[in-house]
Amino acid sequence: MSRFFSKKFASLVPYTPGEQPKERKYIKLNTNESPFAPSEQAIAAAADAAARLQLYPDPEARELTAAVAAQCGVDPAEVLLTNGSDEILNFAFMAFCDEAHPAVFPDITYGFYPVFARLNGVPYTEIPLRDDLSVDVDAFCGVGKTVFLANPNAPSGLLLSLADIERIVASNPDNVVVIDEAYIDFGGESCIPLIRKYDNLLVTQTFSKSRSMAGARLGFGVGCRALMQDLNTIKYSTNPYNVNAMTMAAGLGMLADEARTRQNCAAVIENRAYVTRELRALGFTLTDSAANFVFAKHPEMSGEEIYGALRARGILVRHFKTPRIADYNRITVGTRWEMEQLVAALTAILAERN
Amino acid sequence: MSRFFSKKFASLVPYTPGEQPKERKYIKLNTNESPFAPSEQAIAAAADAAARLQLYPDPEARELTAAVAAQCGVDPAEVLLTNGSDEILNFAFMAFCDEAHPAVFPDITYGFYPVFARLNGVPYTEIPLRDDLSVDVDAFCGVGKTVFLANPNAPSGLLLSLADIERIVASNPDNVVVIDEAYIDFGGESCIPLIRKYDNLLVTQTFSKSRSMAGARLGFGVGCRALMQDLNTIKYSTNPYNVNAMTMAAGLGMLADEARTRQNCAAVIENRAYVTRELRALGFTLTDSAANFVFAKHPEMSGEEIYGALRARGILVRHFKTPRIADYNRITVGTRWEMEQLVAALTAILAERN
Repeated sequence: MSRFFSKKFASLVPYTPGEQPKERKYIKLNTNESPFAPSEQAIAAAADAAARLQLYPDPEARELTAAVAAQCGVDPAEVLLTNGSDEILNFAFMAFCDEAHPAVFPDITYGFYPVFARLNGVPYTEIPLRDDLSVDVDAFCGVGKTVFLANPNAPSGLLLSLADIERIVASNPDNVVVIDEAYIDFGGESCIPLIRKYDNLLVTQTFSKSRSMAGARLGFGVGCRALMQDLNTIKYSTNPYNVNAMTMAAGLGMLADEARTRQNCAAVIENRAYVTRELRALGFTLTDSAANFVFAKHPEMSGEEIYGALRARGILVRHFKTPRIADYNRITVGTRWEMEQLVAALTAILAERN
Repeated sequence: MSRFFSKKFASLVPYTPGEQPKERKYIKLNTNESPFAPSEQAIAAAADAAARLQLYPDPEARELTAAVAAQCGVDPAEVLLTNGSDEILNFAFMAFCDEAHPAVFPDITYGFYPVFARLNGVPYTEIPLRDDLSVDVDAFCGVGKTVFLANPNAPSGLLLSLADIERIVASNPDNVVVIDEAYIDFGGESCIPLIRKYDNLLVTQTFSKSRSMAGARLGFGVGCRALMQDLNTIKYSTNPYNVNAMTMAAGLGMLADEARTRQNCAAVIENRAYVTRELRALGFTLTDSAANFVFAKHPEMSGEEIYGALRARGILVRHFKTPRIADYNRITVGTRWEMEQLVAALTAILAERN
């Protein structure tokens, strides 16, 4: 830390992204990326945009915003695109939280929420997940704070029903409820249609997972016009050209090939069923994940041991040291071949132990 | 504004980017873009990266950071890449300004500085430019605040000498001095070498202007390691994957073709000399710009009239309503052909008037 660093950030502990080692080739199951390349239409559109990079992107991102809105069944004025969904989440912490409007989220969820809260000087409360790692819906009803919920949640993968989401939104009419749907396309139902009924609902999604664009950084928020105006005020006071021209083009290309996205999601869901079955057969306990990852623990080995043994065999998964979930590993659902390698490695690891 | 918007932003007035009209084809001389496409090496590298977008970019951006550092003659630990240079400027306002460390900048400069200050709740002072629109260097010496200076300044285009910059940095040892070198490659000398001598100097640059990558969003900061650690804390608490994979690849491609950048800058400098000469012959007064734009006023027509007359003829320039500079227009230096069209249009506009 320099002697110039503002005192307000002196104790800020940044988010730690999943490791991206370069020293050897791993089967990467640690950051919930898609195992599938983007659509050829996206690749071609991005390459085409690269030839005109001397011009600024459209700061209003009109074309892609219209396409996202059409895909979501809403109006373009109800959509804001950002540089990944981390940016829209940070904008929400900025716009809708302060000393008078603290944040609230589960104790086990996306690890960036408490970082955003501390970054923005926002007081926050963590509501413990229940013992089965499910969200305590009743505790969020009428909580009177700005709510952040990932649905499905990470790293549990557990999904709340639309009825539960609506209960939380309806019971907190004077606070914004942010539903982070990064993983919604792998078996959940989006609550976007509720934005027409509730002016306090902000839904965030990303092109990083189901749309194979983690490398491009494209997220977005959907909510009523007034919420979007606030978020636009933040955007135009922060980084008006936040989404670059190649990413916009790639996003349009992906949306033009929705059949591909549906096919990829179906493959992930099928591979998730396969790996869940195989891991249970090996003695693992898994949550009932609706995301593109599974969350698994074994009675005979600690989460850290399994993480290390897999890493030694060239397979990267994500282990969190957080006490309540330290027994688990979060494992991205990849291709069938990758899942077979994982199962074979775990079979060998457990056999060596016995 | 929604009823949920944090009171701290209630009076925030966002930055207004230069207009990007879509309804007709303009000769665009209003946002200081390069008239030249990026290097074929950059285009090919970005297209190649687009095929692997399913993977997150390296959050540390190791390869491009090393290349930028080599280009700047510094260590990779002295460089931080951002999503355009607006992001590194905002990070600097976050990290190095607060109630106890107000900001200071000229009254006429990049219009985003006061927006960043208000966004971050930072008190700020504006020091008037002198009558000739030059920066009052003495007023910044020993000012005891966090200094933001664009060099060359915008929209004047006027350049401070390295000796003047060093006086300001040396005389404010307890405050960070940020030198925004967005336009330095068009005739100025970078103060980056001074970062080894002063721990309070942060230099920001961009690939948007001289490197034809406005559409890709790539900026960076250079300073001592401790300053970079602070800025990295902000980055990893805001958006760890702030620079996307295609932009990183394009940046590497541009740096691999420095001959192209030098050739493009030489062309802009030559065209600036041409348009300066021609506009002076038409009776315009111009500042002595060291940037890729000229700043011009005419004794017989207001800045707004000239802006409107050019727009009607399909040429977009940038007019600011700020009283002290309302007589001027900022005109991007484009290709020789574009400058000829501009001169012809202004000749006709002035002739019609007489």
